[in-house]
Amino acid sequence: MPRKPLTPVSFTNVTFDDVFWKPRVEINRTNTLPIEHQQLKASGQLAQYRWKPGMPGMPHIFWDSDVAKWLEAAAYSLATHPDKKLAKQVDAVVDDMAAIQGKDGYLNTHYLLVEPKKRWSDLRGCHELYCAGHLMEAAVAYAEATGKTKFLDMMCRYTDTIRKEFGRGKGQKRGYPGHQEIELALVKLFRATGKKDYLDLAKFFVDERGRKPHYYDAEAKARGEESHRWHFGAAYAYCQADKPVRELAEVTGHAVRAMYLYAGMADVAAHTGDKTLLPALRRLWKSTTQRRMHVTGGIGPTAANEGFTFDYDLPNESAYLETCAAVALVFWAHRMLHLDKDAKYADVMELALYNGALSGISSDGKRFFYENPLAAHPGAPSGRREPGTHHRRVGWFGCSCCPPNIARLIASIAGYVCSSDDKSLWVHLYAGGSAEAQIGGQTVKLTQRTRYPWDGKVSMTLRPETAAEFTLALRIPGWCRKAALKVNGKTVSLQAVTKKGYAHIKRTWTKGDRVALDLPMPVERIEAHPNVRQDTGKVALKRGPIVYCFEQVDNFKNLHDIALPADAKLQTTFDAKLLGGVCVITGKAKMRVVEGWGDELFSADATKVKTVAIKAIPYALWANRKPGEMRVWLNAR
Amino acid sequence: MPRKPLTPVSFTNVTFDDVFWKPRVEINRTNTLPIEHQQLKASGQLAQYRWKPGMPGMPHIFWDSDVAKWLEAAAYSLATHPDKKLAKQVDAVVDDMAAIQGKDGYLNTHYLLVEPKKRWSDLRGCHELYCAGHLMEAAVAYAEATGKTKFLDMMCRYTDTIRKEFGRGKGQKRGYPGHQEIELALVKLFRATGKKDYLDLAKFFVDERGRKPHYYDAEAKARGEESHRWHFGAAYAYCQADKPVRELAEVTGHAVRAMYLYAGMADVAAHTGDKTLLPALRRLWKSTTQRRMHVTGGIGPTAANEGFTFDYDLPNESAYLETCAAVALVFWAHRMLHLDKDAKYADVMELALYNGALSGISSDGKRFFYENPLAAHPGAPSGRREPGTHHRRVGWFGCSCCPPNIARLIASIAGYVCSSDDKSLWVHLYAGGSAEAQIGGQTVKLTQRTRYPWDGKVSMTLRPETAAEFTLALRIPGWCRKAALKVNGKTVSLQAVTKKGYAHIKRTWTKGDRVALDLPMPVERIEAHPNVRQDTGKVALKRGPIVYCFEQVDNFKNLHDIALPADAKLQTTFDAKLLGGVCVITGKAKMRVVEGWGDELFSADATKVKTVAIKAIPYALWANRKPGEMRVWLNAR
Repeated sequence: MPRKPLTPVSFTNVTFDDVFWKPRVEINRTNTLPIEHQQLKASGQLAQYRWKPGMPGMPHIFWDSDVAKWLEAAAYSLATHPDKKLAKQVDAVVDDMAAIQGKDGYLNTHYLLVEPKKRWSDLRGCHELYCAGHLMEAAVAYAEATGKTKFLDMMCRYTDTIRKEFGRGKGQKRGYPGHQEIELALVKLFRATGKKDYLDLAKFFVDERGRKPHYYDAEAKARGEESHRWHFGAAYAYCQADKPVRELAEVTGHAVRAMYLYAGMADVAAHTGDKTLLPALRRLWKSTTQRRMHVTGGIGPTAANEGFTFDYDLPNESAYLETCAAVALVFWAHRMLHLDKDAKYADVMELALYNGALSGISSDGKRFFYENPLAAHPGAPSGRREPGTHHRRVGWFGCSCCPPNIARLIASIAGYVCSSDDKSLWVHLYAGGSAEAQIGGQTVKLTQRTRYPWDGKVSMTLRPETAAEFTLALRIPGWCRKAALKVNGKTVSLQAVTKKGYAHIKRTWTKGDRVALDLPMPVERIEAHPNVRQDTGKVALKRGPIVYCFEQVDNFKNLHDIALPADAKLQTTFDAKLLGGVCVITGKAKMRVVEGWGDELFSADATKVKTVAIKAIPYALWANRKPGEMRVWLNAR
Repeated sequence: MPRKPLTPVSFTNVTFDDVFWKPRVEINRTNTLPIEHQQLKASGQLAQYRWKPGMPGMPHIFWDSDVAKWLEAAAYSLATHPDKKLAKQVDAVVDDMAAIQGKDGYLNTHYLLVEPKKRWSDLRGCHELYCAGHLMEAAVAYAEATGKTKFLDMMCRYTDTIRKEFGRGKGQKRGYPGHQEIELALVKLFRATGKKDYLDLAKFFVDERGRKPHYYDAEAKARGEESHRWHFGAAYAYCQADKPVRELAEVTGHAVRAMYLYAGMADVAAHTGDKTLLPALRRLWKSTTQRRMHVTGGIGPTAANEGFTFDYDLPNESAYLETCAAVALVFWAHRMLHLDKDAKYADVMELALYNGALSGISSDGKRFFYENPLAAHPGAPSGRREPGTHHRRVGWFGCSCCPPNIARLIASIAGYVCSSDDKSLWVHLYAGGSAEAQIGGQTVKLTQRTRYPWDGKVSMTLRPETAAEFTLALRIPGWCRKAALKVNGKTVSLQAVTKKGYAHIKRTWTKGDRVALDLPMPVERIEAHPNVRQDTGKVALKRGPIVYCFEQVDNFKNLHDIALPADAKLQTTFDAKLLGGVCVITGKAKMRVVEGWGDELFSADATKVKTVAIKAIPYALWANRKPGEMRVWLNAR
């Protein structure tokens, strides 16, 4: 690590007063959290703690994690918006869990109630450590939000049990999770409690992963199973256990597992100072973002493994791109940003956040996508196991990891805006509101006024308690070609002060100093790398951080027949009434004409074309109105 | 039916002496049939008749059909090329089958040896009637080729058993096959034996299909199973049993089953004179060829059901397009042609034959495709259950229906060239060689000289035994825009004599009369219907009946980045040394340049393009050289 990593400014110290995030956080609080509580109840997940053999609603191996993510989201909300009803709901779940926790601290509902003799027998397939991780994250959030330590204490007891079970000592298991997540959770628990044992355990799981002989073979043998029951090479890579993590060269397998692992590795690196993890993390970053990521920041193109395929394979209509994967990419990018202090991570974080992650939730916060394809045709089937859930958001899923995941991200999204260290205040995301950071022993307040992401003008005011020298590091987004900066009305040369995508303004700041950042955001026609066979000859429209798409409801059928001329003039308009207020892009394009084609499927006569008016909306907001076709990439002429 | 259906001129009365079919039939005889015999031996399928419980190589429910199709192909070959070794191999299989045939005539290896108590218990899923049908076809071919009646007698005994089992009488089953095929086979058996019972049974299976209450529910119940064990609506349509066949409106489900059913329906209509089947057949023809067929004549785009999806859904890289389905489309088209005497059927027959069916076999006749996609990328996975078999032909499959199917088609392909009735001789396919037909009580010999399909000039000579008036009906292919016809050097106005795509030349023909047909075949840029989202903005190259494709081995990587300018000049050259002699298409196109793009996946800077030389080969011949990318549809500029 070049220097000490940055520290995020907590979401509790950042407030939004803007057109974009304020309403979304509010909808998350007033609609999403209550709706998800109802869904957890309806699915039987809240009653799971009282399940007995013979009853319906048998606790599934991943149910703890769904509840945990909702608890975490609720805790974040309680931290900024105290709410008695919500607090009571949370407390009830914690009490229910406390009632079944084992005397030894063990706390997994499925294994406590359904298969008590099979604890820790199938790390590869059964999500036991994954659930533990999510519960840890929830417990930390709950303690920080409410000051109540009951849940945190429960999780410390559970973690102490896990510590005894896993390790390199005699009688201990040298295993690691099949679905990663606990690594980053243990680092959170370490930060919340200061107990280094937890950090050590996180490092243990990271270090053991993928070593030979494979633990998964050993545990399969212990279960009396053929270790080759699963497709081999494929399956180790499926959960990123095909080689020790420091040797990993490309992103493979299940996308969410990969992202959680990498986030955990970054956390371990940041808190242990272990530099040996960094080369792998940087290689994997390139593999992910330079060869295996969609233009929306969505990742994991196929339903077959809920994950990655091969370089430059970026299908549109069949793209899986799980909401959780985009959320997890935000997590990983955020951590890499804090390690490497490079805006390239913030660029991807912003991209995935505004597009591939936010598309996972409806504009009213009540319905969710699991899959986030880049094109939709009403007749086309989904790769997903739950039919009918890929073109219309639904209230819940049989495996409902995504809804509470997007909820916890939105509930804490204010924590992604700024970071600080002793000598500098970093701004990653632009959004109207204010932040209070600790810099050099005093509180510095930063206020942003902006209509971002609909407009790139950002007016900032700094208010240190007393005048002091420090650096204000402002992200100059990678998508912006003509950024301009003024401090107290005086132009600052960005070329002179920009390093790794951040403009570093080091000066003595006094209360009321003004910074004006202008990030012009014309509509851009994006092309994909020539190796991407699915997008060749096509363009996507992007404006600032927002990727656009075309929906049938704004246009017509056969969106694929639109061809956008190279010289097409594209206008931007803010439509305050549409989808909570969005910038739309309009223009004219050519379109193949069905009329007059005839009955034949194929013809040597060229189709006629006509001129049509077209309209694009932000991709993340598609499928909030009348069902129909959608596509991000248009043919270019 | 407007008139009496046509009758094909038997393949035994047609000989090839040409550049295209003669070598293919020869390779089929000398390479394919022996190789397939070896494969059947290696797979255990030839030894199945001696299987006993506990032994490896348990006869699979569809194994009889694979062997039967090989027997049928071998019989066709024996009919034109006597071959002692092959005859001995065939006789050995017939003897083996005779040895296990039940006293009651029953003859299904799996149910005789493996599950003797489960006969006729699962028509829906277990291919029992399907195997019977293929055995009937083989027996008819064998009897006609060799004059030996043993196999035919065996099959008559088996069919008599089937007749007793199925019917509307007391104690009989009102069932019908889950995998159709027996319908058309029974009509063949009827034609070979003259026994109308067999035609009646074919009609019974056709008429019972899809009636409510569903037989499949009844038999499931009888097995003690939930009748809803399979996905309902979907599964009836999967085997075209969702409604009575006369009500079928669109082609659905498993493509091969659909085609065999429709071929059987056409046979029943032709031989019973039942006109009530015709409206459905014509609707289904439109559904198939105007909305659900690839440009190669391949059908059944998805591996999910080995079949159809929805109108205008014609994927390229993931297209399944089973070889058997194209072969079966040839069968159905051939029958519709004989019913309706319309060249539109012959056009599709020719298209599917030269492209989607022939692509199923390698140029050396030794390896086979199950899937016939229209684009291939080395990294892309197959939809097929047997990985690695979609980009490279292989010697055999776990379910190896396609190899013997294409072999029997090629062995009897001469039977698709001409047809006749009392007053007319019809020519459907152009190929150098000669045919002898019975017209008005005498033998008329027709000789064709042509380099078709590489050249559209066809010189024909007619040789009736004595001068006689009859009609020569010549197909004017739908792809041909400027056909020209001369009789004895004198131009005939095609406009005046052409009806439903056939030029009807009615005159008194004398020995040595010459007919010159010129079918110019410039390279054409084919577009797909505007509703086909996968091909919009793209063109395919076609010349005469041949669809072309681009292979990496002739070009370069990233074929998807080629853009063919609207004014690109395309040359045709015959390359005698390439793939047995083929016309290749060459020209220049634009190509996106990878060099200089940089590391990013997406960019707002337009890619640079360069000019490249491109070369296309007939689609059916791809994957005979070095592995790599392939694509039929190119971006158009």
